[in-house]
Amino acid sequence: KEEENKVFLCQTLLHHYSPSIDKDVLLLTASIEGIKYEFQEKLLGGAALDATGVPLPEDTLSVAKQSDAVLLGAIGGYKWDKNEKHLKPETGLLQLRAGLKVFANLRPATVFPQLVDASTLKREVAEGVDLMVVRELTGGIYFGKPRGFGTNENGEETGYNTEIYAAHEIDRIARFAFEVARKRRGKLCSVDKANMLEASMFWRKRVLAFAQEYPDVELSHMYVDNAAMQLIRNPKQFDTIVTNNIFGDILSDEASMITGSIGMLPSASLGDSGPGLFEPIHGSAPDIAGQDKANPFATVLSAAMLLRYGLGEDKAAERIEKAVMDTLNRGFRTADIYSSGTKLVGCKQLGEEILKSV
Amino acid sequence: KEEENKVFLCQTLLHHYSPSIDKDVLLLTASIEGIKYEFQEKLLGGAALDATGVPLPEDTLSVAKQSDAVLLGAIGGYKWDKNEKHLKPETGLLQLRAGLKVFANLRPATVFPQLVDASTLKREVAEGVDLMVVRELTGGIYFGKPRGFGTNENGEETGYNTEIYAAHEIDRIARFAFEVARKRRGKLCSVDKANMLEASMFWRKRVLAFAQEYPDVELSHMYVDNAAMQLIRNPKQFDTIVTNNIFGDILSDEASMITGSIGMLPSASLGDSGPGLFEPIHGSAPDIAGQDKANPFATVLSAAMLLRYGLGEDKAAERIEKAVMDTLNRGFRTADIYSSGTKLVGCKQLGEEILKSV
Ligand SMILES: CC(C)[C@H](C(=O)O)[C@@H](O)C(=O)O
Ligand SMILES: CC(C)[C@H](C(=O)O)[C@@H](O)C(=O)O
Repeated sequence: KEEENKVFLCQTLLHHYSPSIDKDVLLLTASIEGIKYEFQEKLLGGAALDATGVPLPEDTLSVAKQSDAVLLGAIGGYKWDKNEKHLKPETGLLQLRAGLKVFANLRPATVFPQLVDASTLKREVAEGVDLMVVRELTGGIYFGKPRGFGTNENGEETGYNTEIYAAHEIDRIARFAFEVARKRRGKLCSVDKANMLEASMFWRKRVLAFAQEYPDVELSHMYVDNAAMQLIRNPKQFDTIVTNNIFGDILSDEASMITGSIGMLPSASLGDSGPGLFEPIHGSAPDIAGQDKANPFATVLSAAMLLRYGLGEDKAAERIEKAVMDTLNRGFRTADIYSSGTKLVGCKQLGEEILKSV
Repeated sequence: KEEENKVFLCQTLLHHYSPSIDKDVLLLTASIEGIKYEFQEKLLGGAALDATGVPLPEDTLSVAKQSDAVLLGAIGGYKWDKNEKHLKPETGLLQLRAGLKVFANLRPATVFPQLVDASTLKREVAEGVDLMVVRELTGGIYFGKPRGFGTNENGEETGYNTEIYAAHEIDRIARFAFEVARKRRGKLCSVDKANMLEASMFWRKRVLAFAQEYPDVELSHMYVDNAAMQLIRNPKQFDTIVTNNIFGDILSDEASMITGSIGMLPSASLGDSGPGLFEPIHGSAPDIAGQDKANPFATVLSAAMLLRYGLGEDKAAERIEKAVMDTLNRGFRTADIYSSGTKLVGCKQLGEEILKSV
């Protein structure tokens, strides 16, 4: 390597682990694989609010933009729950996603064979589930304007948002999803509410237009209410799901919970160019902050996704994924995935076990 | 009774059963309980489209409005899937809901003890689930304006909708939900996306304002993505859920599927005054239309809800509910809820068995 990769870690306030396991695992993997990193840690979310008064400081965004990849912890916490919108930790995350133009959010929902019994679904339903939700991340009701608080014609107060998609926003996520499906099992299910919403009718029409470009991908359409049911009834029917920002928020969380492995699942957010953003699917779990109970697997697997999708370092990514499997096979579990016969450990010790396996 | 109750049946095209079981059960129950009904059947949805060219004929709406209660089959079907929006069967249903001003949609998700094993959730997770989703039904993104197709500032095509709630719309559904929770186990969970959407922030603020009027009800708030997960992780944590139109659409379907009893679940849509609307939660199942396979329990239980919530005839409602339980206990099942050791029958025969039990 001529140049060092610049990897950028967004720090969040809720340190479930210290020193950070994801960074340690990256560093160790890097040194073994002969990859050079330059790390920079910057503030985002609650930590940034406390230190600078805004959830995404300019400095954080500009350093992130110049990086090769961005690794992120989870954000949010009770302390800022009542902040005004522009001063919420979540707003910082939204601004970062928008600033990096990462329109495609990849959320795998995979059942780890060692953890099948952690799912609340019956073994025969959960076993072998391996689906990918491709969520549109920088459009729709999250960003649509007009939005805000107003007064209607009766002088009554209102709160409102706009669900809106422009042609190119649908086209690029559709193309992205077809490519993902093609590399997986060749099945793409587009989820919308086209029996009700114009934004969804438009979505469906544009997605459909790509079908002939991808004759090898089997395209289907499903209403979001039905999708929420089918994920429970028979999740194995799905390979790749593509959907809008808000439906993707709901369905990807639902899909990850059916696996029973929510503490295990990473995510990647990618754009056309520029750095990708890698973060665990789970939230910041403020209820267990500082108790050495959090499950670090998802963050560590986010580092693996960063290597694969962000830096093209597939071998290093595999090394991390194997270390995770190895740690699971040696029986180590945090409380959220513990079952009798396995070894219950805290976050810190689990991190050390992963490091041993790298 | 001095006056006859007017009950109005909306006919849909997809006759899974003939003569209609729900009507037969109502008639028999009525005669036993000494209640007089006057039935009128009118067209809605696909059947109305085929006969009159519109999904909600004026005649249907005006007769519905003059009724004491409206019993509805499921609507929709492949034949009209590609119709323009104003000519979709679903549009007729939406117009009927709006026309009757039934803003509160009650969707129970109850696990029938006889059917626990039909759930894809583990027995210990599914057993005893008994929750009620109170969905706002006449506002939000389903009805918000502006909506449609347009061109943005770059000359690009768009599709858009407006999620909007006015104060009184939130207040009346909040009050309704607090009343429901008070009559149940006293727990109300309001679901929103207040960390992102102004419409949700406004929703949360208004719901919160009712808390002091209902000190006996324990109010909590949950983000919709988390709610989608918690319903799978531990559905028993919920008693009453109140949420907006689109989130309610998704979550109530999810909740009904976790029970494994989706073919069993009725719903009621109520307003401040005027007739309520009673319909099964499930869709029209066009894939099995005419095959004598459909499960009539949900429609029959909708008739029971009609008696209880629509006409205040609790005793008659109980008679129907007991007949359903009795039929289940005698082992009769349609294919969707069949398990080994029970008796598989078609829709028609199941209807006859229910009639025997009334
Ligand atoms: C924190 C919140 C704004 C965010 C979202 O809704 O996108 C989160 O739920 C997620 O899915 O990453
Ligand atoms: C058919 C459709 C318009 C309807 C809705 O979304 O309200 C249905 O899904 C329901 O929940 O009753």
